[in-house]
Amino acid sequence: MVAIIMGSDSDLPVMQKAADILQHLAVPFEMTIVSAHRTPARLFDFAQNAHTRGIEVVIAGAGGAAHLPGMVAAISPLPVIGVPVKSSNSIDGWDSILSILQMPEGVPVATVALNAARNAGILAAQMLSLKDPNLQERIVEYKKLMESTVLEKAQKMEDQR
Amino acid sequence: MVAIIMGSDSDLPVMQKAADILQHLAVPFEMTIVSAHRTPARLFDFAQNAHTRGIEVVIAGAGGAAHLPGMVAAISPLPVIGVPVKSSNSIDGWDSILSILQMPEGVPVATVALNAARNAGILAAQMLSLKDPNLQERIVEYKKLMESTVLEKAQKMEDQR
Amino acid sequence: MVAIIMGSDSDLPVMQKAADILQHLAVPFEMTIVSAHRTPARLFDFAQNAHTRGIEVVIAGAGGAAHLPGMVAAISPLPVIGVPVKSSNSIDGWDSILSILQMPEGVPVATVALNAARNAGILAAQMLSLKDPNLQERIVEYKKLMESTVLEKAQKMEDQR
Amino acid sequence: MVAIIMGSDSDLPVMQKAADILQHLAVPFEMTIVSAHRTPARLFDFAQNAHTRGIEVVIAGAGGAAHLPGMVAAISPLPVIGVPVKSSNSIDGWDSILSILQMPEGVPVATVALNAARNAGILAAQMLSLKDPNLQERIVEYKKLMESTVLEKAQKMEDQR
Amino acid sequence: MVAIIMGSDSDLPVMQKAADILQHLAVPFEMTIVSAHRTPARLFDFAQNAHTRGIEVVIAGAGGAAHLPGMVAAISPLPVIGVPVKSSNSIDGWDSILSILQMPEGVPVATVALNAARNAGILAAQMLSLKDPNLQERIVEYKKLMESTVLEKAQKMEDQR
Amino acid sequence: MVAIIMGSDSDLPVMQKAADILQHLAVPFEMTIVSAHRTPARLFDFAQNAHTRGIEVVIAGAGGAAHLPGMVAAISPLPVIGVPVKSSNSIDGWDSILSILQMPEGVPVATVALNAARNAGILAAQMLSLKDPNLQERIVEYKKLMESTVLEKAQKMEDQR
Amino acid sequence: MVAIIMGSDSDLPVMQKAADILQHLAVPFEMTIVSAHRTPARLFDFAQNAHTRGIEVVIAGAGGAAHLPGMVAAISPLPVIGVPVKSSNSIDGWDSILSILQMPEGVPVATVALNAARNAGILAAQMLSLKDPNLQERIVEYKKLMESTVLEKAQKMEDQR
Amino acid sequence: MVAIIMGSDSDLPVMQKAADILQHLAVPFEMTIVSAHRTPARLFDFAQNAHTRGIEVVIAGAGGAAHLPGMVAAISPLPVIGVPVKSSNSIDGWDSILSILQMPEGVPVATVALNAARNAGILAAQMLSLKDPNLQERIVEYKKLMESTVLEKAQKMEDQR
Repeated sequence: MVAIIMGSDSDLPVMQKAADILQHLAVPFEMTIVSAHRTPARLFDFAQNAHTRGIEVVIAGAGGAAHLPGMVAAISPLPVIGVPVKSSNSIDGWDSILSILQMPEGVPVATVALNAARNAGILAAQMLSLKDPNLQERIVEYKKLMESTVLEKAQKMEDQR
Repeated sequence: MVAIIMGSDSDLPVMQKAADILQHLAVPFEMTIVSAHRTPARLFDFAQNAHTRGIEVVIAGAGGAAHLPGMVAAISPLPVIGVPVKSSNSIDGWDSILSILQMPEGVPVATVALNAARNAGILAAQMLSLKDPNLQERIVEYKKLMESTVLEKAQKMEDQR
Repeated sequence: MVAIIMGSDSDLPVMQKAADILQHLAVPFEMTIVSAHRTPARLFDFAQNAHTRGIEVVIAGAGGAAHLPGMVAAISPLPVIGVPVKSSNSIDGWDSILSILQMPEGVPVATVALNAARNAGILAAQMLSLKDPNLQERIVEYKKLMESTVLEKAQKMEDQR
Repeated sequence: MVAIIMGSDSDLPVMQKAADILQHLAVPFEMTIVSAHRTPARLFDFAQNAHTRGIEVVIAGAGGAAHLPGMVAAISPLPVIGVPVKSSNSIDGWDSILSILQMPEGVPVATVALNAARNAGILAAQMLSLKDPNLQERIVEYKKLMESTVLEKAQKMEDQR
Repeated sequence: MVAIIMGSDSDLPVMQKAADILQHLAVPFEMTIVSAHRTPARLFDFAQNAHTRGIEVVIAGAGGAAHLPGMVAAISPLPVIGVPVKSSNSIDGWDSILSILQMPEGVPVATVALNAARNAGILAAQMLSLKDPNLQERIVEYKKLMESTVLEKAQKMEDQR
Repeated sequence: MVAIIMGSDSDLPVMQKAADILQHLAVPFEMTIVSAHRTPARLFDFAQNAHTRGIEVVIAGAGGAAHLPGMVAAISPLPVIGVPVKSSNSIDGWDSILSILQMPEGVPVATVALNAARNAGILAAQMLSLKDPNLQERIVEYKKLMESTVLEKAQKMEDQR
Repeated sequence: MVAIIMGSDSDLPVMQKAADILQHLAVPFEMTIVSAHRTPARLFDFAQNAHTRGIEVVIAGAGGAAHLPGMVAAISPLPVIGVPVKSSNSIDGWDSILSILQMPEGVPVATVALNAARNAGILAAQMLSLKDPNLQERIVEYKKLMESTVLEKAQKMEDQR
Repeated sequence: MVAIIMGSDSDLPVMQKAADILQHLAVPFEMTIVSAHRTPARLFDFAQNAHTRGIEVVIAGAGGAAHLPGMVAAISPLPVIGVPVKSSNSIDGWDSILSILQMPEGVPVATVALNAARNAGILAAQMLSLKDPNLQERIVEYKKLMESTVLEKAQKMEDQR
């Protein structure tokens, strides 16, 4: 079970892509808002209890001075995937990236590219596939699908000339 | 009463300057380590109770993905001054600055320059001086001292030519 | 009493947010234009006299090579909060941030995030609350309001799935 | 089984930290050099076969235009953790970070902080702990150890004053 | 014969400019899609065989963590020209530039300006002109044409005043 | 008459190069310390009176949030040359550059490269040469000297092979 | 006599502001296109002859890898003012700024803010005013006009509340 | 015949690597100093005549506001390879890179990584190999040598464990 959390409902258009790919890969998930700065008590509750109530991977998206992924990683023993969101108050995304990526020794956050919530979903699936060969097979299929889509487009471009 | 906290004992050489100027200005303070990422429970305890046990201003220094000042500001109603520390794992200080400065609406951190713990101390004193005219007088004196030191150096440079 | 000043009337859409939150928190304030570069004499007058005419905290917003907050801090003993404004002539806000934040030892400016005038207002209120328990209570209420707003949105997102 | 690979033997001082923490957490691993740019055939062989020969997580470190983590992620279905190395030819680490982090949709690399190979090791262990409760317990212990170390240092700093 | 390849069909509006200038200079070329991350096998095939099937120069455009130019350069002995594309997922182009430009010792990529596919085409023509004096003559003509166009515009601006 | 001013005596090693080249070009100058932040009254006095007491060009060097050049330019009608100094508290010089260069419309500062006080001196001489043909001649000589020095080194490098 | 030159007619909307302010200050000027990269011979002719045909100050605007101001400064003994233009091919203006500002020792370019052609015009006027007290008077008037405009706006803002 | 030129003799330690690899690959070359800013006439002579006196490829290295590669490319029809040098006056190399890389449409410079003169040499050899199959063979050998060196180091690392 994956938990997708985000700092604000304004992050939903970005974070929805994580939900979509998990659905595509048939990985169960839940999704909600947890704000490190506006609901710190909720953050603590979420992070302390996630692994005891069946969550296995946390995907956390936030923008600006983005503390949500790092604080969940500080409290929970689960792997945490951070999605830097280029929110309206962010400086071109640099603050989002650096405040999620540059975690100190001992407390990793698995950071993906700016706004790359889909990749966060794939990464969560890859983690869960370590104990689920069928899921790994679906990931392999997904990669093949991407490949064949590109090959078709390549053929089309070559033909058009 | 000012509380000076830092994410790691390796921040002490920088943060000591806050203690020194507070001592110079006769402002009482306490100083300790609170790590957002390694002691999150301690962070919560500290931030929730600071204002009830007499702390009036918090100075928090941290480096890299620096979440300490922002998380204290999220939990406590007190004014929080953030000192971005150019720690060994920081990318020239940019991560420290952006993850402290770029707080979302509703949760300010009063950020000072990179490594500028002395300025954090002065700022804390300025805040406390709002209810202590004698302290404001000492701040005025400190500013005059800085001015006269520069004037002397200017005179010396002019004389040497 | 808080003074909100800005370098240009084009900064008003950003700086108005400081006025709004101060009004919400029932903190008296005045608001005007002081340009460090176009009205330097006015800058000096303002900064030299602010604390003698009842101003307790100064919020100063400016963009580009933003010298207003730092010059007020150089002259006045009051705490100065700087708001880096992403003005039309700014390079994505970097110049605004660095020329406000990176003050030398002895002359702090309490810098908030790019365009974050609301946070400047909250910070000013926090400073004044050090001598006004009722104001601190209103700040606590404001934080609770933010929290409950997020909790509602979180519930809504969970329900929609 | 974790595979630690790096682009050059000059990355070893950084990448050794991944090996050390895996050893500490009793996670089996192998470690070798795979250069995307100098041994591309080896890169392909490694990435194509890793999951069939028992590798479950790949940790890949590289600096400058760092293509190793991304290319392994392109070929292998396994989760890939990227360690941006601040190598001698890197521009303060920015090139290492961006060329590992900013992967396109469909091909994630779990990026950790600059030079943060220890965190890469912890993250790999967290992934493997999804199917190994004992390993999760050792991770919890590790977090407690970090916490108590900080608490001791905090006590010491408080006592010294 | 020049090969123009790009990581995605979304790069075509930029890369078409390379095709246009090559056509203008009467340099034969082919153009297709090769994605380092989605079609790694195709990348290897392309790069290993390009020089044996008559390709003399490769122009490769990609954005974000752009590995295509560098990986072709790793495998092929041919000169590779890299075009950093400011794609939608790029951070203002910085990731595209750094992940193409900052290649390690031994494996050069001839990088041109952001989105500057036309210059990539001219550069390819300049390389081929080393063995084709007529092509060099056409390049000289092209430079003269640019010069006269500017001179006309200069005259026009001077006349308008 | 040129005035060389700097924000701190720690800027002297950089700013001395302005004095040296002015001496070499036989341009009279004075040199002293004026700190915008620590001696704001002195700044105002200096800037208001410079042109009435015979100063024709001001060279102002400062680091970090460097307000000295811009504030002199705000007050004085004279041309002001700004030297961004990479001082110890500067973030690799970026703050120094941006807070001097990015002046708003109406108040220019002629900015030279980071630490390039020699160029500030040459630029001041070029300005004064507009009314002093002999000085222009000395500048032409200086340029010839630079040229011949390079030509000698070029010859030497060619000979050594 | 001031010469305003620009690398491309697409720079005219920015550079026109230099012409406008010079006209306002009654400073004679000429304006044309000189492209360092597309008309290098014209660049040499212009730079070698400018001072002999009565030009006293050169204002040169260019974007991207902007070599025009620096190359004129290399050849001509005249003071050269550089205007970094945020052209369509520029990376947010950073390339324009750095390639104009960071001139080596011996060859200064008086750089103004990004797109700040008006300031380039004022700076040219300030240089020429060193031998024209009437022009200096007009500059003083211009500064007073700016001041009174701001004072009016300040009054208006204060009245509106 | 390759010409290696550099803006200053201080660039020699970096640029020597281009000479070394060309020697290794048995490609004839000449090497000298040409300063765009201090010897502009020499720059013009060099660039105008290079292709008529047998030069086929130009490698140009420079730092800071580095105009040498771009100006040679503006004048000469030959392919020009630019080496951004992290010289003492450079801002961490960013100015060197941007002022070489970001050339306008029509005038390409084949830019290599910061200080990567060796890669410039290899790139020049690759260009010349288009008409010299033996040289291409030597380049293939060089790539194989790099590969086997890495394979040996990989074996050694695996054995040591």
